[in-house]
Amino acid sequence: MRAAIGLISAALCIAPALASDDEQPLTISRVLDETTAADWRVPAPENTVYLELDSGRVVIELAPGFAPDHVANIRTLIRNGYFDGAEIARVHENYVVQWLQPDENRPLGEARERLAMEGRITFGPRADFTQLPDGDVYAPQVGFSDGFPVARDPQAQTMWLAHCYGMVGVSRGMEADSGNGSSLYVVTGHSPRHLDDNITLTGRVIHGMTELTTLPRGTGNLGFYEDPADHVPIRAIRLAADVPAAERTPVELLRTDTASFRRLIHARRHNRHPWYLATVDRVSLCNVPLPARLTPP
Amino acid sequence: MRAAIGLISAALCIAPALASDDEQPLTISRVLDETTAADWRVPAPENTVYLELDSGRVVIELAPGFAPDHVANIRTLIRNGYFDGAEIARVHENYVVQWLQPDENRPLGEARERLAMEGRITFGPRADFTQLPDGDVYAPQVGFSDGFPVARDPQAQTMWLAHCYGMVGVSRGMEADSGNGSSLYVVTGHSPRHLDDNITLTGRVIHGMTELTTLPRGTGNLGFYEDPADHVPIRAIRLAADVPAAERTPVELLRTDTASFRRLIHARRHNRHPWYLATVDRVSLCNVPLPARLTPP
Repeated sequence: MRAAIGLISAALCIAPALASDDEQPLTISRVLDETTAADWRVPAPENTVYLELDSGRVVIELAPGFAPDHVANIRTLIRNGYFDGAEIARVHENYVVQWLQPDENRPLGEARERLAMEGRITFGPRADFTQLPDGDVYAPQVGFSDGFPVARDPQAQTMWLAHCYGMVGVSRGMEADSGNGSSLYVVTGHSPRHLDDNITLTGRVIHGMTELTTLPRGTGNLGFYEDPADHVPIRAIRLAADVPAAERTPVELLRTDTASFRRLIHARRHNRHPWYLATVDRVSLCNVPLPARLTPP
Repeated sequence: MRAAIGLISAALCIAPALASDDEQPLTISRVLDETTAADWRVPAPENTVYLELDSGRVVIELAPGFAPDHVANIRTLIRNGYFDGAEIARVHENYVVQWLQPDENRPLGEARERLAMEGRITFGPRADFTQLPDGDVYAPQVGFSDGFPVARDPQAQTMWLAHCYGMVGVSRGMEADSGNGSSLYVVTGHSPRHLDDNITLTGRVIHGMTELTTLPRGTGNLGFYEDPADHVPIRAIRLAADVPAAERTPVELLRTDTASFRRLIHARRHNRHPWYLATVDRVSLCNVPLPARLTPP
């Protein structure tokens, strides 16, 4: 048995499970049932971050292909023990959850204090990109690359990560280079795409989102907790590479460069589940599920 | 002092408050600071529903202009006491919260058991509509009407409510007419716009969203709680019109047919807050905040 997680379900009723034969419509469930092992990938342990809360583990996949300097800095901060005593200080309804190191004097060690913004890369002709056909309000093209939701400008030949639900970014102050990974945020609500290109995204939560989204909301300015005593302690932030294999969370992700993923997009666009009355035949970037599953122990 | 609620904040740092003079950029905060009493409205008590939870009150504005039969049925169900003992049975991450009457034999009284789908109306030339200029993935036109996010088809001269965060709809089974208002859902995550035209929307949560979004997630099929003992009790569902004036929640909503609301859209589109590095100059329907505030006692 594999436990599918992280899927956005379509129906608002308990629909009968559909048998997976050719006479049945192409639903997301059917697409997933018909995937093979080759459709799934295990994120590299060096790119996988564990945020350990009292309630459970949040798993993040970093995106060094888009933000290499920030990812390197985050790895350095983690391995320096910078995050010992880190806390979730901000839980902003329909927007973000943010954590930080409350000890402002804690040294960054070998990590850099300031980093130029990253996230917009120049793509070559062979860059992985599964394009969506229905356009986007914010960018000329949108789709998926290396498992992440992205926007593209074909004229400038640039591609950048998009602020969908679950994306992880680097908090910064007023200056463009004032972020360094010592404080990160996760998008927990409707996609704030106006942040694209204004702040560096570095990854995506691939497991454990509800550990963040069920936290009490901060009632202070910007959703910060007003009383530091309300901060949510973080037991540890670790790279999976530094955790014994037996203690790792066995998350697998559906590849986004496969025929199966294109079938999933098709299923989402056309909503062939019999619960639907009207065909939609459209899909927006942040409404495409990025399936994850736990492999059995 | 008025307490602004429900705003989506832009900055990911604590930015200094901006003074409200002409040399300052047009931010959403400034637009709100410069509104007058005429920019705000109080929803009609007959269109206002209170969902009373142990943790607090959720306030919903019904949309009889779009779904008159469903709104009438919901009023009848409320006044019949149909919802006595109702419970939140489903909390689906990044999707919906849904409540229902667990006693399936409870009579509907004078309420109708089946209702034809509603939500798509024919609009006349004078129908209230504040259009957004940047397009939409799902519909030919989008904007706001009577305070609600809507989509329009100018050729067919139809307009319908859109599934943005906070919208309230009528759960149904497989048949189009199988909903009646006895079970309602609230959109709590990224806008599931593929539901537009597939299920009847009847209103929007205007206060108290966090009472719903912080609930433990259901781990069963479609986010239902697996154990009925986990259901979240609802103390009462009432119309504000049936609640003594002194016990009503004094919510006011920014009108969407005003110059102030158009200024707010402008502020959101152009992101003139100095924290932003890149102008966006675009906005999608569900990223426009619909401000609410509590009037002082």
